[in-house]
Amino acid sequence: MKIRDVVLTPVAFADPPLLNSAGVHEPWALRTIVEVHTDEGISGLGETYGDQEHLDRLRAVAPHLVGLDVFAGNAMHARVAAALGGATGHDMHGLTGQITAAGTVDRVFSPFEVACLDIRGKALGRPVCDLLGGAVRDAVPYSAYLFYKWAGHPGAEPDTWGEALGPDGIVAQARAMVERYGFGSIKLKGGVFSPEQEIEAIHALRDAFPNHPLRLDPNAAWTVETSVKVAEALDGVLEYLEDPTPTIEGMAEVARRTPMPLATNMCVVAFEHLPPAVARNAVQVVLSDHHYWGGLHRSHELAAICRTFGIGLSMHSNSHLGISLAAMTHLAAATPNLDYACDTHYPWNRADDVVRPGALTFTGGAVPVPTTPGLGVELDRDTLARLAENYRTCGVRTRDDTGYMRTVDPSYARKRPRW
Amino acid sequence: MKIRDVVLTPVAFADPPLLNSAGVHEPWALRTIVEVHTDEGISGLGETYGDQEHLDRLRAVAPHLVGLDVFAGNAMHARVAAALGGATGHDMHGLTGQITAAGTVDRVFSPFEVACLDIRGKALGRPVCDLLGGAVRDAVPYSAYLFYKWAGHPGAEPDTWGEALGPDGIVAQARAMVERYGFGSIKLKGGVFSPEQEIEAIHALRDAFPNHPLRLDPNAAWTVETSVKVAEALDGVLEYLEDPTPTIEGMAEVARRTPMPLATNMCVVAFEHLPPAVARNAVQVVLSDHHYWGGLHRSHELAAICRTFGIGLSMHSNSHLGISLAAMTHLAAATPNLDYACDTHYPWNRADDVVRPGALTFTGGAVPVPTTPGLGVELDRDTLARLAENYRTCGVRTRDDTGYMRTVDPSYARKRPRW
Ligand SMILES: [Mg+2]
Ligand SMILES: [Mg+2]
Repeated sequence: MKIRDVVLTPVAFADPPLLNSAGVHEPWALRTIVEVHTDEGISGLGETYGDQEHLDRLRAVAPHLVGLDVFAGNAMHARVAAALGGATGHDMHGLTGQITAAGTVDRVFSPFEVACLDIRGKALGRPVCDLLGGAVRDAVPYSAYLFYKWAGHPGAEPDTWGEALGPDGIVAQARAMVERYGFGSIKLKGGVFSPEQEIEAIHALRDAFPNHPLRLDPNAAWTVETSVKVAEALDGVLEYLEDPTPTIEGMAEVARRTPMPLATNMCVVAFEHLPPAVARNAVQVVLSDHHYWGGLHRSHELAAICRTFGIGLSMHSNSHLGISLAAMTHLAAATPNLDYACDTHYPWNRADDVVRPGALTFTGGAVPVPTTPGLGVELDRDTLARLAENYRTCGVRTRDDTGYMRTVDPSYARKRPRW
Repeated sequence: MKIRDVVLTPVAFADPPLLNSAGVHEPWALRTIVEVHTDEGISGLGETYGDQEHLDRLRAVAPHLVGLDVFAGNAMHARVAAALGGATGHDMHGLTGQITAAGTVDRVFSPFEVACLDIRGKALGRPVCDLLGGAVRDAVPYSAYLFYKWAGHPGAEPDTWGEALGPDGIVAQARAMVERYGFGSIKLKGGVFSPEQEIEAIHALRDAFPNHPLRLDPNAAWTVETSVKVAEALDGVLEYLEDPTPTIEGMAEVARRTPMPLATNMCVVAFEHLPPAVARNAVQVVLSDHHYWGGLHRSHELAAICRTFGIGLSMHSNSHLGISLAAMTHLAAATPNLDYACDTHYPWNRADDVVRPGALTFTGGAVPVPTTPGLGVELDRDTLARLAENYRTCGVRTRDDTGYMRTVDPSYARKRPRW
């Protein structure tokens, strides 16, 4: 079964003003919807980043995939690598960590691999998780992903989530999230206010949710010293502290000085980062993400490395739609050593989802694993057209949280570490 | 598609008197042929060790697999682990290294996983390599596997290979192997004679085959000091030196003191051996073997670990038949970073193969990857019955190279290191 055609559709969907250590989410988040069509009439879906540089790469690579067998993952990876010729991506928004040449290949390869797995599942009449060793859980737990946020985008109406600029707002947001979705664990995106204020917010969450595991992710906003202080202050309160400080070396020093488990989706984001991280015991949890770890099979390889080297495994998320959620859910379902509830931005963006409703639901904070063939989701063509039109007209081409923040506060500067 | 029945057939097949550091191969080599039957009428094949302890475990586990879906590899692994309850295998013949509880699970799981992949391939009309990311090579190179050997078993007629007890015999054996099979690289099983004699044999091979990569495997027969001396003597002559000395610590010391790449199938034989080996840079090449690394998917995980940590990857072999050769070939075909020609004992045992002739051939030292569905091999029921009868009557129940050597030389003692 060979690839006959690849269709790439960049889309934009409404995103609330979520704050982080690099600035604030713009009103439009970008993704690329990938459709792979085969000569036997079966098609598959993938979803990936929508930033211009990445989109250009997807477009450059796509013609090279035509004619490939949908089972030829090894050959596809090699073709992607050859087509990219060593090109290296850039972390424009400052939240990803260092992108390497190999990581760039894995990023571009990922949505095509997912689409081929979707196709293979459909051809076989089996859900994608069955192509990954089978589900070990019927539903995948996700965590409530809390953000400091403005009431609404400047000049626009407040959104339904409301303002959250301190402990009270964060706890209210958590209550809304937990009430609507049933989440059993909670993550706060930090790096926005001073460490003291964010510690206060965590304590407020602990008081309000005595039994929910809690996480804090300041996106490398702190020095080693600050990180150690926060880790000590929140020892026993957090299940893990995510990327308190930049670089493997910095994380390793924090890890040496505190018992707090450190998680990362910034300093270990490609296979070549694993040896130095392991050698220094820099991180105790890796947040996997099939979008940059090279798809579902390579994410399984990452899981095997974590299992082998005694590193915990959780899952990272960027703003995403339902194709990604389906892929994340199949992957998580078929990964026995996924030790933590996965991150997801989905509640913030689901209103604009490009997949037809019903396939993906949250029950008790978890997404039941689709049991229909492939990923188990179908495109809603009307929504896709609307989101593609958003993309054409919105003006955003590369995510820039810092630049957007500067339109509100011209004195704002990206600084890492900031505290 | 669910497992309805598992049939285990221990078999014995004629084996020449091949010498190694633990003694000499007995006249009968043992394997277990695994047949998995499904409720949809498709059956699959696996092949594994035939030693009593392992056979008992296979028999204990098999009933627990009935009812499992053939796609449920994760659940199958968990069921095998539960059924074994932490039991730990033993390396009775002294050539395997330390078997751990987790390694025991992987050993027992392996043939069932392979049989399920055979079934899935047949159901899909695809060769097994396509379930592993697709072949990256049309044919898999194997190496000529040379042994010091007697002309024949004591009291029996000489076999067709003849005696090889010094450089001339080894070179003659190499010529026969290369002539018949076209092998492009050569491995000598050492640890039989003094290091000086084996170095001499390697030099004789180098003179006779100036362009063939050469390997030497004394199965941990040497001290660290001896290993360093041999490594220096053969620097630039061998592509790698395999298990010169016991333990990760011993190998690490040799590795520190010589530039010779060290390979192993003795000190790194389970996932838990990888962290200490990586931390000490103890080995530069791991010989994978799906029979003890937990099947084809887990062997892919090992390959990913080797790729990530900069460790070379080759493939190990025990005396085996065609089902194993097919599985090894599909795995190797779909493993891009398999950097070396694979080992195989197949030329020594192929006359007794249980698979119907024609599916597996050697061309230019390589086995063309079967392109028919599944593993691409079928059982020859007559041969299977004959080999099962061999098993019933031969008296061998657990491989014991040392005990057999003692029947010839009562003063022989297993000693490691010996030199
Ligand atoms: Mg993060
Ligand atoms: Mg060996």
